[in-house]
Amino acid sequence: MRFNVFAVLGGSAATVAFLLHPSSALAALDAEASYVLNSFSFLIWGALVMWMCAGFTMLESGSVRTKNASVICLKNIGLYSIAGLMFYLVGYNLMYVDVSGWIGSLKLTYGVTTDEIALLGGDSSVAPAVLDKGYSTMSDWFFQMVFVATTASIVSGTLAERVNLWSFFVFIIALTGFIYPVVGAWTWGGGWLSEMGFQDFAGSTIVHSTGGWAALAGAIIVGARTGKFRDDGSVKTTPPSNVPVVTLGVFILWLGWFGFNGGSQLALAGATDAIAISVILSNTNLAAAAGVLFAIVLSRPVLGRVDLLAGLNGAIAGLVAITAGPDIVNHNWAIIIGGVGGIVCLFGMKFMEIIKVDDVVGAVPAHLFAGIWGTLAVCIAAGGNLFVQIVGVFAIGVFVFGISTVVWYIISKTMGARVAPMIEELGQDAGELGIEAYPEFVLMPEDD
Amino acid sequence: MRFNVFAVLGGSAATVAFLLHPSSALAALDAEASYVLNSFSFLIWGALVMWMCAGFTMLESGSVRTKNASVICLKNIGLYSIAGLMFYLVGYNLMYVDVSGWIGSLKLTYGVTTDEIALLGGDSSVAPAVLDKGYSTMSDWFFQMVFVATTASIVSGTLAERVNLWSFFVFIIALTGFIYPVVGAWTWGGGWLSEMGFQDFAGSTIVHSTGGWAALAGAIIVGARTGKFRDDGSVKTTPPSNVPVVTLGVFILWLGWFGFNGGSQLALAGATDAIAISVILSNTNLAAAAGVLFAIVLSRPVLGRVDLLAGLNGAIAGLVAITAGPDIVNHNWAIIIGGVGGIVCLFGMKFMEIIKVDDVVGAVPAHLFAGIWGTLAVCIAAGGNLFVQIVGVFAIGVFVFGISTVVWYIISKTMGARVAPMIEELGQDAGELGIEAYPEFVLMPEDD
Amino acid sequence: MRFNVFAVLGGSAATVAFLLHPSSALAALDAEASYVLNSFSFLIWGALVMWMCAGFTMLESGSVRTKNASVICLKNIGLYSIAGLMFYLVGYNLMYVDVSGWIGSLKLTYGVTTDEIALLGGDSSVAPAVLDKGYSTMSDWFFQMVFVATTASIVSGTLAERVNLWSFFVFIIALTGFIYPVVGAWTWGGGWLSEMGFQDFAGSTIVHSTGGWAALAGAIIVGARTGKFRDDGSVKTTPPSNVPVVTLGVFILWLGWFGFNGGSQLALAGATDAIAISVILSNTNLAAAAGVLFAIVLSRPVLGRVDLLAGLNGAIAGLVAITAGPDIVNHNWAIIIGGVGGIVCLFGMKFMEIIKVDDVVGAVPAHLFAGIWGTLAVCIAAGGNLFVQIVGVFAIGVFVFGISTVVWYIISKTMGARVAPMIEELGQDAGELGIEAYPEFVLMPEDD
Repeated sequence: MRFNVFAVLGGSAATVAFLLHPSSALAALDAEASYVLNSFSFLIWGALVMWMCAGFTMLESGSVRTKNASVICLKNIGLYSIAGLMFYLVGYNLMYVDVSGWIGSLKLTYGVTTDEIALLGGDSSVAPAVLDKGYSTMSDWFFQMVFVATTASIVSGTLAERVNLWSFFVFIIALTGFIYPVVGAWTWGGGWLSEMGFQDFAGSTIVHSTGGWAALAGAIIVGARTGKFRDDGSVKTTPPSNVPVVTLGVFILWLGWFGFNGGSQLALAGATDAIAISVILSNTNLAAAAGVLFAIVLSRPVLGRVDLLAGLNGAIAGLVAITAGPDIVNHNWAIIIGGVGGIVCLFGMKFMEIIKVDDVVGAVPAHLFAGIWGTLAVCIAAGGNLFVQIVGVFAIGVFVFGISTVVWYIISKTMGARVAPMIEELGQDAGELGIEAYPEFVLMPEDD
Repeated sequence: MRFNVFAVLGGSAATVAFLLHPSSALAALDAEASYVLNSFSFLIWGALVMWMCAGFTMLESGSVRTKNASVICLKNIGLYSIAGLMFYLVGYNLMYVDVSGWIGSLKLTYGVTTDEIALLGGDSSVAPAVLDKGYSTMSDWFFQMVFVATTASIVSGTLAERVNLWSFFVFIIALTGFIYPVVGAWTWGGGWLSEMGFQDFAGSTIVHSTGGWAALAGAIIVGARTGKFRDDGSVKTTPPSNVPVVTLGVFILWLGWFGFNGGSQLALAGATDAIAISVILSNTNLAAAAGVLFAIVLSRPVLGRVDLLAGLNGAIAGLVAITAGPDIVNHNWAIIIGGVGGIVCLFGMKFMEIIKVDDVVGAVPAHLFAGIWGTLAVCIAAGGNLFVQIVGVFAIGVFVFGISTVVWYIISKTMGARVAPMIEELGQDAGELGIEAYPEFVLMPEDD
Repeated sequence: MRFNVFAVLGGSAATVAFLLHPSSALAALDAEASYVLNSFSFLIWGALVMWMCAGFTMLESGSVRTKNASVICLKNIGLYSIAGLMFYLVGYNLMYVDVSGWIGSLKLTYGVTTDEIALLGGDSSVAPAVLDKGYSTMSDWFFQMVFVATTASIVSGTLAERVNLWSFFVFIIALTGFIYPVVGAWTWGGGWLSEMGFQDFAGSTIVHSTGGWAALAGAIIVGARTGKFRDDGSVKTTPPSNVPVVTLGVFILWLGWFGFNGGSQLALAGATDAIAISVILSNTNLAAAAGVLFAIVLSRPVLGRVDLLAGLNGAIAGLVAITAGPDIVNHNWAIIIGGVGGIVCLFGMKFMEIIKVDDVVGAVPAHLFAGIWGTLAVCIAAGGNLFVQIVGVFAIGVFVFGISTVVWYIISKTMGARVAPMIEELGQDAGELGIEAYPEFVLMPEDD
């Protein structure tokens, strides 16, 4: 997000181009109006991104079996809380302050500046310095903070139904306080990948693939749910326990994504910003719609039935795919990028079963696989830098997957990453929380 | 929405008036600030309208029996996706571009203009031309696009539990790509009804009645659910399967309606717009509240009990009713218009049973009957043009109901509009999708 | 909200300060731009606060037993409707118009001004008078109106499962039409507590404690649910019937609170407002996150298990606690205030069981106890006025609890406050509404 897409207008033979988004190309707005609108844009779009956390929670609590639906709620509200505090304590500094290639500042806590406080106190001598920044310090912090939580949300879905609560929280501390901020420092923070020209407008790779890699590492170390992959090579189906709630989750994510991509323009200070955000929201919607429809239509031949979950995950995959370049001015490409994202996700879900990695909600296909596709698609569509994009995808993948594997390994060897078999059988709700998600409803005994 | 309400200030003896909303009466804001705020207003209110789609999904998936709760989720996310793509491919052009009385342009696809792209590329010579439009092209497209989806959502509710998935999608293609855009061309696009002076601020008739007529045609052609109307003349009650989810849906719709009506001011470029939108949101809320309370209170004598569903549908009917004239400056009239809307809906639900048309969620009473009332109420309250309003209601009704009947008829004679009796009995979730909405919950066998 | 926090910059030894928020300290924005942005800010944040009503509804309908889940939905949509109408009819005038110490105007109805109507009609001579107010009349009304509903929502949760529907609505009429507006007149309306210097930025006491006191009075008069407190001194556990829905409710509240606190800046007219709102949203989030985490961590030693409900209620308590002073510039204090709020709530829930007051959702601990803490914390953190804060908390407590007790008493002696034992046993859904929340799901017989 702290990063200008240096794409070529007019682009390749495909007549594709991504928008330049100079912070104030035309800028007839005066400094204070710009300041107000930029800050307000961060806050209002940021609030929508926070809402995505509720989306992940609904998606996940509807996807798991009823016996684990409460604990996934706690994991999600917990991860959002941890992400916010960690990004305040260390994350923002590490990601954005004094980034020298690889890493930012190790200073503790971030906050409103002394100039801003002075201005609030009536000292107008600091006004020029404050306005010169273009937006209020904490509006930017707020917007960046909710992004961290998104990354963390991806992990909880993949690892549901067997990772234990406190181990999960420990990993989230590492992810939100260190892993994600470092990836952010390399890119939006102005570090080495940014200098190479890596393009990822709102974070197909930086946010979504990072979450996906962390989830994948966890899924491998923690292992599959007991009985998911049978000895005879067959895979036990574990359908969502509450489909309307899953669907609600997807709609929430779709809505929140307007904030995720729209807010990543990082400004609302003139006509160019207004045009860009309008294009971004339109493309975001077109890509998601294409993700849904391509996945539904293709699910018939591929899976042998019209698959609702493929459609729902197709929306997310379409959204993830367009996230690296939602400012593309040829809307047909938005449709293709999103649609292919849906297809990538559909095949990815099959692929995960083949390699026997247990991803409860299909988060790795939707966020990692479609995220890689989207990051490469930026480049293809804009006609350049394929090498840089590949370097970025690869470097971030190696880093996040590597560190995450180490962290998950340490967790599993110390506090243990996985609940006891008895608790897994009984359900984490009763086993870890002593509460059931639907205590008054008669539930079916599980068949094995 | 592309339409100024030429209502009389001071109005009739009833001292009622609707607000004029000139795009920039006072307009101390400079061109670029206006451009930014107008565009942002489209986007942020439009995002709220998109959210209504989640509202319809929840309302409908909670209203149907559990055996059809998944397929209605798929229909809803599918219709939203189709609506977005169709409005991009053909709908917007047909509705708004070069409208000559009856119909707009047949050109394919719509998008960011070349001037806007040039401006983004740094060519400031085009700035005056861009700014002169007052808002970014795609912000307007985005806002209009989400309206199409609302129309389509109305149909899915009425026809739930028996229309088959792909037939439904085919109808939605026709509705969002042709039927609704033509109605829109006549009115907001500047066509013949607009020239006559037809008034429908945010679409009581244009959006809600259109959806209602299309749903009604479908309900007649497709027929009632098996066993809904018994041979002895009695009606089988089919209560909602998940009341909290239905209620959530109504709250979502209520929230989204602030965007629906507020955004239909189409501008945020000065004090007059700010005043108008404030009045609109306040009236929208008052009308919905009155719809709820009038319906609850009246449900006691009419239905013999305090009826939650009458109250919930009363909110929607109140919202639909005020939608044609939410800018009325006498707030007491907003209360009356909304309250009467709730009552119209209450009796409408009874009426539908009498004429034996099966509307699963009561969408026809809430959107069509209350929509007609609201469209006429504009006129009564503002003291004029009753004839024009009736012509508009009638013409749109004949057109939409006629074409929809033809389309549904063709569908039913070719691919078939209705699922096989066995699938209807079994439920569409298992029958069409091979998935259940609540697979772990023990469900009651249905009594006939 | 109509109230400036006269806190000391630099503050006490604790180096804490609250932001001054002068309406236009720097104000480079011209009058019309200010007017548009202030009004828009009221509307958009207000819409988010309305959304909190859906949050309370989900929280409560998921918390009650399934047999009472429909009636609580009706109570919530009903209370929101009543609140909106009452605040239009009498509440706003009583709270804000011509407040002379204790009470405002007794005039009926509130609405758009004649100057505003004239301006809309094209009479630009009134423009200076209109612009001088700084925001449109109804944008402010809309924002204040949704606050009333919040107060009312608190009561429905506490009294769920035994208070009868119409008695509840009668109390809500009194609460929203008289009790809350009087409290508001004393404070934000400029009355005697305001003149003393009572500080409550967005309503820890004015909104949340008021709701809490009203709920507490009701809980005492109406009494506990049958069988909740057993003769042997033990307490029957009544776990939530639908945990994902409760969690959704909390996320909705969290999102809505950004509007609740952010909008209470009451302006968006310059850099100082932008900075203040950014600080407010950041602190609001930090406090809620701390409320969650402190409560979860502490629930282990205190309750003997990691308690999801303590965490969820901790979020709300953290939000309530920070609401009195979300503009604090030392973010560490926001964390402490919110975290302590979560702890206060946790112990408060135990305390309620000890004093045998039955609060179904823990609204009294979360809104009243944490609200008192937050109101005192403003003062402690800013280094002054503890006496005034205590006076305010005490006076409002005595007034609201006293009047509420009287009203509940009258209700109980006339129409009866409580459903018949048979209906309580059967459930209010079947007993009062003739509808069940989940009619197709097999439910467990209740054990006593």
